[in-house]
Amino acid sequence: METPGIRRVHVQRVGPAGGPGTAALAVELPLEVRVNGAPFAVIMRTPGDDQALVAGFLLAEDVVRRANEVVRIEPCTEADEEARDHVMQAVVQGEAQARLFERLASRRQVLMTSGCGLCGRRTIASLQSRVDAVTGAWTLAATDVCALPLRLREAQAVFEATGGLHAAGLFGRDGRLLDSAEDVGRHNAVDKIVGRQLLAGRLPLSEAVLMVSGRASFELVQKALLAGIPIMAAVSAPSSLAVDLAEATGMTLCGFVRGETFTIYTHPHRIVTGA
Amino acid sequence: METPGIRRVHVQRVGPAGGPGTAALAVELPLEVRVNGAPFAVIMRTPGDDQALVAGFLLAEDVVRRANEVVRIEPCTEADEEARDHVMQAVVQGEAQARLFERLASRRQVLMTSGCGLCGRRTIASLQSRVDAVTGAWTLAATDVCALPLRLREAQAVFEATGGLHAAGLFGRDGRLLDSAEDVGRHNAVDKIVGRQLLAGRLPLSEAVLMVSGRASFELVQKALLAGIPIMAAVSAPSSLAVDLAEATGMTLCGFVRGETFTIYTHPHRIVTGA
Repeated sequence: METPGIRRVHVQRVGPAGGPGTAALAVELPLEVRVNGAPFAVIMRTPGDDQALVAGFLLAEDVVRRANEVVRIEPCTEADEEARDHVMQAVVQGEAQARLFERLASRRQVLMTSGCGLCGRRTIASLQSRVDAVTGAWTLAATDVCALPLRLREAQAVFEATGGLHAAGLFGRDGRLLDSAEDVGRHNAVDKIVGRQLLAGRLPLSEAVLMVSGRASFELVQKALLAGIPIMAAVSAPSSLAVDLAEATGMTLCGFVRGETFTIYTHPHRIVTGA
Repeated sequence: METPGIRRVHVQRVGPAGGPGTAALAVELPLEVRVNGAPFAVIMRTPGDDQALVAGFLLAEDVVRRANEVVRIEPCTEADEEARDHVMQAVVQGEAQARLFERLASRRQVLMTSGCGLCGRRTIASLQSRVDAVTGAWTLAATDVCALPLRLREAQAVFEATGGLHAAGLFGRDGRLLDSAEDVGRHNAVDKIVGRQLLAGRLPLSEAVLMVSGRASFELVQKALLAGIPIMAAVSAPSSLAVDLAEATGMTLCGFVRGETFTIYTHPHRIVTGA
């Protein structure tokens, strides 16, 4: 029996106790939120407690302020069966209707970062339809992967002082640091690095490695994919959808890069171990 | 001389080597992004490299695919002086114009989570105009604050298995765990907890403490504030704007809660130390 929110996958472990194995992933899937019939937002989340999640989200977005403004929050029965678990509809009343209208009328739109806001499979299919699979037949030594976190940390000026920043580093196929960035936002550090390369006309980055200081979410893998980066490594865990996307698009995804060990989740052929 | 991206503040340290001191905070401020004259997004970020950040963001949002689609990305000279450093305008051409139009025409709007997308001071002023300062004259023992991370960890089922989830816990004024949630999304765990309390008609949570497993960003403090929570604690660092918001709204904000020590950033009167 599986614990909800967890999915087990086959991985390749590198290090003293390396070899094939399995790992537990935190499930990440998009949830589409509709309010009074209107598409409102798509949230990347771990399924479970979706009703509470939507209620808290609507409070944070200042649509709802009191419990009696919520008529109901429930799975959308109009969605087709496959998507039903991933579309929630809320009905709000009273002053919440005016606040909703104000939000929907606002010109300050933000894009959905997930492809379509339905199930994870469609999210990936939608992305695949607009980007090429990553290429790059070159390989990276496992020892170079292990060296990435230290090389990134050496370039981090602000993190050391505040402990409050996420970092990302871009490395060449020889494992050398090409660029790095830090930001309070997980995604911003990657956007800054990729942005500089874009402006310099260097995309796709088919001979580069991206290292991030935290976890590998779907959105971070998506950013690496859009930049054409074939190898991504994270200090911490990837999510289930991050692994699915890397698998589907040919990207080598490594996680838990710590000391002499790390875990390869997808396309291990690009990593060469000494053994 | 200050390192860019860092701001020093006065804090109160609790623990064996406790007392007044200073701490370095990672600067977090909203950046408004306009594309071809239209408001496009507001990003919470650490200032610096805003041009690269916007370029990478527009690539990730699939507005821009190639460097030659970017005509320019520069600070917005139309914004007033105070806001100029926090509004970037991009001009895109070619197929990027059609993609931009598609994005702007999309009905899938998401709200700005920051109040106004201009400078930090206005963001906070805008929030203050719609929510009351938190109340709650009760106090919490420093030893109870130190116990929160362990009590939260005991309730975390999935994190232990995957290492990939953020957790949040709601505690009573006696330090007892009332509710907890886990999610791949930093904000979702808090939304789930607050959402359950909202649906149960228990807001404002003026006798509760919120603990989060990671950092305390502006948005997380905002969520606690909207729920009326007077004390918030984080395992890791708060951002500058998180501290500013807590200061302005009367919330007690603690960070780096580890072992027997933690740091109080704002309104220390709610924390009672044994000394």
